[in-house]
Amino acid sequence: MSEPQVYTHGARLARKAAKDAKLVPVLERYEAWKAASLAVDGRDEADIIALTGLLNDYKNAVEPTLDARANSAQEGLQPSILEEFLGYLFANVSTDIGQDLLRRPASSFIGLIFNPRDVHALVEAPEFTLREKDHDFVLGACVTLSIQAEGSTFTRSDKLVVPAVAIECKRYLERNMLDECAGTAERIKKATPYCRYIVASEFLKLDRALPELSQIDEIYVLRKQRNLERNTDIVLNPIYPELIVHLYQDVISHLKRIWWDPESGLTSGRVFNLPR
Amino acid sequence: MSEPQVYTHGARLARKAAKDAKLVPVLERYEAWKAASLAVDGRDEADIIALTGLLNDYKNAVEPTLDARANSAQEGLQPSILEEFLGYLFANVSTDIGQDLLRRPASSFIGLIFNPRDVHALVEAPEFTLREKDHDFVLGACVTLSIQAEGSTFTRSDKLVVPAVAIECKRYLERNMLDECAGTAERIKKATPYCRYIVASEFLKLDRALPELSQIDEIYVLRKQRNLERNTDIVLNPIYPELIVHLYQDVISHLKRIWWDPESGLTSGRVFNLPR
Repeated sequence: MSEPQVYTHGARLARKAAKDAKLVPVLERYEAWKAASLAVDGRDEADIIALTGLLNDYKNAVEPTLDARANSAQEGLQPSILEEFLGYLFANVSTDIGQDLLRRPASSFIGLIFNPRDVHALVEAPEFTLREKDHDFVLGACVTLSIQAEGSTFTRSDKLVVPAVAIECKRYLERNMLDECAGTAERIKKATPYCRYIVASEFLKLDRALPELSQIDEIYVLRKQRNLERNTDIVLNPIYPELIVHLYQDVISHLKRIWWDPESGLTSGRVFNLPR
Repeated sequence: MSEPQVYTHGARLARKAAKDAKLVPVLERYEAWKAASLAVDGRDEADIIALTGLLNDYKNAVEPTLDARANSAQEGLQPSILEEFLGYLFANVSTDIGQDLLRRPASSFIGLIFNPRDVHALVEAPEFTLREKDHDFVLGACVTLSIQAEGSTFTRSDKLVVPAVAIECKRYLERNMLDECAGTAERIKKATPYCRYIVASEFLKLDRALPELSQIDEIYVLRKQRNLERNTDIVLNPIYPELIVHLYQDVISHLKRIWWDPESGLTSGRVFNLPR
């Protein structure tokens, strides 16, 4: 059983709790959630249902406290729960696909730009910029990119993350966020066309249920519920385990695929040969 | 006195003339043009006017023969004259800017895309594609880009050209070519924002004189004449020397500039600080 590579929520919570005694009971509840989640070894449907149950229990227990805090949105304690949950969910990915990956919140590559200061820099060691976009959770690889001008001994290097899957976690999805995600999807698909891009939101905050078609591969509304039902007397839906099972299987089947085979245009007659 | 780095027109002409005796007089005329152009040492206004005169003389002498040939457009003998002329024009660039450059027809970088075959390739040595665009003449630098996955010993490398100036040479400019150049300009400015992109056409073949504003930095109509006046009794204008002088000075002043200074936002209060 592997562990998540980072505990974003836990680390943030521990920092805050060190200065604020009111968070100590939350931190205790967190430690229980973490231990129980780490104890779920497999990733078959029952395991994922169990993990989702633990997530719902933890969220139900601590979110009233977190939401009541001043600056709760800026503090990031609530949003980081779902991010950390994805860390548990995908901790065992190497068992499923035979390959461990970078699995954590990360900025992924969306473009390389050359911006030399002047013609001399261009010829000796051109300055370049790696354009990146933050994601709440990435499954991918870290690589080093190096640029060396012809005839020069100087090399400039920088690290970048190539994503195979990028997931955005939102509490609710409204117009501006959706537009930002659609823009991000376009840039991802240009730079890393085989990255699957998923938005996982708890609630929906859009007038109409579904947006125009964009390059986002899937949008999950994990509670199948509108945001306006929060803070009312209406009972909240849980995060539905079957949706987490679907998300998990969608990601794993993407990771197991051949994304691109130079021969397939001639062997199958279909260059992309994607599953339908 | 430096030489051009390639003689595209001369090499093509010599290959054809080896199989076609009718081209032998053209080749002789070419050798005279080449020798006379190489003998023009400086690049002040009088030198550029002299070079342009030699170009007009050579074109006037040989183009009737070249245009009369079957498949003259595919053969590329006529279009490569202007390309080779730019090689002479910019052969001495190191004297003007204190730095020699790649100066020749080239494909320049417009984007880096990661297209790993599958998740294992992603982690071990992700396949990548350098998107490039052909230009008739480039002043720039050749660099090697290398990608190494974290924890892997395997490195993939590829060469690319970072342009400081890209020039397209056209006999006449019509709608489709202009649209292609406008599209190329957009891609260049995204990947290499400090590349100056210039279109140099002999004739204009558009209903209205000027296109909508695009990211092309300048379009020269070197004969200040419409294409429909070709193949008529109307006397053709020469390629105007003052336009070649303008093009030359425009390129040199771009190459001498500081393109980007990280301090200028605070020292001048203007981040780009471009000349107007």
